Amino acid sequence: MRTEICDRLGIDVPIFAFTHCRDVAAAVSNAGGMGVLGAVGFSAEQLEIELTWLDEHVKGFYGVDLVIPARYEGAGMDDLSPEQLEAALAERVPAGHREFAEELLNSHNVPHLPPEEQHAQLLGWTAVTAAPQVEVILRHPKAKLVANALGTPPKDVVEKIQESGRLIGALCGSVKHAMNHKNAGLDFVVCQGTEGGGHCGEITSMVLWPQVVEAVGDLPVLAAGGIGSGAQIAAALAMGAAGAWTGSLWLTVEEANVPPAQQQTLLDASSSDTVRSKSWTGKPCRMLKNDWTEAWERSDTPSPLPMPMQMMVALDAVKRGHRYPEAAKDVAFNPVGQVVGMMTKVERTGALMGRLVEEYLAACARLEALNQR
Amino acid sequence: MRTEICDRLGIDVPIFAFTHCRDVAAAVSNAGGMGVLGAVGFSAEQLEIELTWLDEHVKGFYGVDLVIPARYEGAGMDDLSPEQLEAALAERVPAGHREFAEELLNSHNVPHLPPEEQHAQLLGWTAVTAAPQVEVILRHPKAKLVANALGTPPKDVVEKIQESGRLIGALCGSVKHAMNHKNAGLDFVVCQGTEGGGHCGEITSMVLWPQVVEAVGDLPVLAAGGIGSGAQIAAALAMGAAGAWTGSLWLTVEEANVPPAQQQTLLDASSSDTVRSKSWTGKPCRMLKNDWTEAWERSDTPSPLPMPMQMMVALDAVKRGHRYPEAAKDVAFNPVGQVVGMMTKVERTGALMGRLVEEYLAACARLEALNQR
Repeated sequence: MRTEICDRLGIDVPIFAFTHCRDVAAAVSNAGGMGVLGAVGFSAEQLEIELTWLDEHVKGFYGVDLVIPARYEGAGMDDLSPEQLEAALAERVPAGHREFAEELLNSHNVPHLPPEEQHAQLLGWTAVTAAPQVEVILRHPKAKLVANALGTPPKDVVEKIQESGRLIGALCGSVKHAMNHKNAGLDFVVCQGTEGGGHCGEITSMVLWPQVVEAVGDLPVLAAGGIGSGAQIAAALAMGAAGAWTGSLWLTVEEANVPPAQQQTLLDASSSDTVRSKSWTGKPCRMLKNDWTEAWERSDTPSPLPMPMQMMVALDAVKRGHRYPEAAKDVAFNPVGQVVGMMTKVERTGALMGRLVEEYLAACARLEALNQR
Repeated sequence: MRTEICDRLGIDVPIFAFTHCRDVAAAVSNAGGMGVLGAVGFSAEQLEIELTWLDEHVKGFYGVDLVIPARYEGAGMDDLSPEQLEAALAERVPAGHREFAEELLNSHNVPHLPPEEQHAQLLGWTAVTAAPQVEVILRHPKAKLVANALGTPPKDVVEKIQESGRLIGALCGSVKHAMNHKNAGLDFVVCQGTEGGGHCGEITSMVLWPQVVEAVGDLPVLAAGGIGSGAQIAAALAMGAAGAWTGSLWLTVEEANVPPAQQQTLLDASSSDTVRSKSWTGKPCRMLKNDWTEAWERSDTPSPLPMPMQMMVALDAVKRGHRYPEAAKDVAFNPVGQVVGMMTKVERTGALMGRLVEEYLAACARLEALNQR
């Protein structure tokens, strides 16, 4: 299953694992794939610590995922510092939204954070607040790949990353987005179908992947959205993808820093239990349905604000959900794809990587046998 | 690509083509696949004519697709004749719904049908109205396969079909539905992802197919939803499907009895132009978005009725759309899947079949080459 992008990245198999957990990222990279650390939740200082840890624990290379949306409230206010931008945006958040979120968590008896943890700061989610993260990445030579969610990254970011010998790509949910990335000179695209966890468009992987592969020509396409088995990776490569970009299935590996109560919620969920909702980030994002998503979608409640203001409203709830996972079970942020229905047991990361490769080979053998009938 | 179900059905390649057009069905069967004629729009008398024509023009075998929903208004009123059932249901249709539909077409200047064509009769859509169609099928030995949409077919239908040496299966959009079919003793399931045209669930093909394949074990699974190329067929077979069930892409073949204006609408549409809507049949059905779908989804307009009453409201509009396709362009019923974005030119049915096989082989070769790097 070794594709050309494996050669360029120095990895054995084109399995990319998006995760917020450095232990999982390291284990995937050390098993021959590429762990990709989601940076959006880390301050520059914390990201420096995470990447230093990865440098020490990864034999080869790893990737980092940023969130610099092409469109968001406050785009263009580039002369402000991160703190100034956040203060300016905070003024645009109606008090009623914060009160509604607060009441929702209180009505579910989710405790408040201890005072020293209460300052919820916007990290990533805008070009201004993500800029310090880019500087951190450039200091870590094993951070060989950068991917951006929610749009083509700014020109200066693309140049800096590429001039340093790294590859930069971006996620897309339509042919149009993919062409924007290609025209901006990116090195690859991650093409995510609507079934994928997190931000996604409306077109499914089966329909989207082949159209993007055809549209972008030589540019490598990493297939995302719905992948939880090696047979699906074989399907993606058969349709012309250069690799598989996975995310959801790393939430239930043993090494993941996902609280046991939240892991159990994921293991129990079926593929029918997700929804595309703006209720956490302000843009359509696939997650488990629960009381939070339903509360924000009623006609008699506040409508989600645009990005990043909805996340400013929701940040406290995200943190309380992480801190008190059992109490917050029905109002937690659980971004995950429809593939959650295939996630039925906790495995070690290395074992899961081995299973994916085995299933991939079995699928190839199945096709080969059919062709010899 | 020959799978076991090919042997059982006497076909060369496991490509199943759902179509309302006998010319297309015959051309697919004669090209080595299996054309499957959608029966829902035909009276028993007309179906007899269609199948007689197919018997004369198909060298091997063909299939027939029925619509006997598991749940619909009037289910259980089995002692009524088709005419009595329709009359009973007609009384439950609010006058406001008929008026709203009428005004919608009038406001788009869609002419009325000539008086002799005005009687729109419910055909299929209920067990009672579909029963005469089953009797017709049983008289045609080349009708080797029967598939039912919208639920496990009634026990007596399953028995009659199987005792006659035919195979019977049914569509499903979830693992639960697939298991219902298996437990009822059906011979195969057609597993359709949400991207598929016509009635569909919410789970995408990439996620649904492998779960159904695993759940039903030995039962052959025909993969549906999103397939428009041979590479996608390779993907489906790699994931364990026994064949590909296609529909949308036969709307734009040369032989299709789709009016040119409607074919052009399909050729111009992208994968973002479809919607899952109850506005024509009363159950979620994927189709092109247009003024009709939007009109029925507004909060200040009538809500679609349950099946089959919404179709009773919409039947006149369906017929006027077929009769005056240019006038009805923005209010026509255009059931089609997201794969519509891959349908960019009119081809002969035989040429399309040949392309699917070539693309399938190219995809298999791509995987094989990767494994030999």
